[in-house]
Amino acid sequence: MSVFTKIITGEIPSYKITENDKFIAFLDVFPLRAGHVLVVPKIEVDKLFDLPADYLAEILQFAQPIARAIEKSFDCKRCGISVVGIEVPHAHVHLIPINNANDLNFTQAKMSFSETEMKAFQEKIIGNL
Amino acid sequence: MSVFTKIITGEIPSYKITENDKFIAFLDVFPLRAGHVLVVPKIEVDKLFDLPADYLAEILQFAQPIARAIEKSFDCKRCGISVVGIEVPHAHVHLIPINNANDLNFTQAKMSFSETEMKAFQEKIIGNL
Repeated sequence: MSVFTKIITGEIPSYKITENDKFIAFLDVFPLRAGHVLVVPKIEVDKLFDLPADYLAEILQFAQPIARAIEKSFDCKRCGISVVGIEVPHAHVHLIPINNANDLNFTQAKMSFSETEMKAFQEKIIGNL
Repeated sequence: MSVFTKIITGEIPSYKITENDKFIAFLDVFPLRAGHVLVVPKIEVDKLFDLPADYLAEILQFAQPIARAIEKSFDCKRCGISVVGIEVPHAHVHLIPINNANDLNFTQAKMSFSETEMKAFQEKIIGNL
């Protein structure tokens, strides 16, 4: 069972943004930037492109209002998207507020925020949904 | 008119992989890696999440066989995805064969290949579609 499935089942807590029958979105606890959100399908598939057709069709539509809420919540030019997937074998889409290409650079050190800060990011994004 | 619209209309040549009524895919001429492909909607919208719902629903399904062909064509762990969008104001999805997170790092210098090499990449991907 992947760490993301444990978040989906509630075994591991998360800073949840929203969910529906197919997807869940929560704050990445190893963020590149404040407001870095993960969108994760509720079925455990390694590669994004191995998702069933209806999941592939709906994942960006599920992510759209979240991306717009991220753009409203943080100082950024837009919400960038990245799918790397080498570390956790459960497909996931990174939504990250970016001002330049380096804000999507996964080779840089991850940021660390306090629980209070993470809760504030979570509430801000949810408030702008 | 964006540089991508000029490619779509044929005003600028490209190493085309495939297209349908809504999208076109061609080799990025400023690639991060051999086999770096751009998927571009045929309507000129700046941000990916401003695409109409049917485009958002279909873009990953359009990209799926291309990503699989890229994985077959180049030595890589998988096909990564990135949407940055700060340089060209016409939404586009990068499909890049990756072995590590640095292969999706847009702050690094772009690669340069000869016309012969680009044609060989194009033919290889098309052959694996």
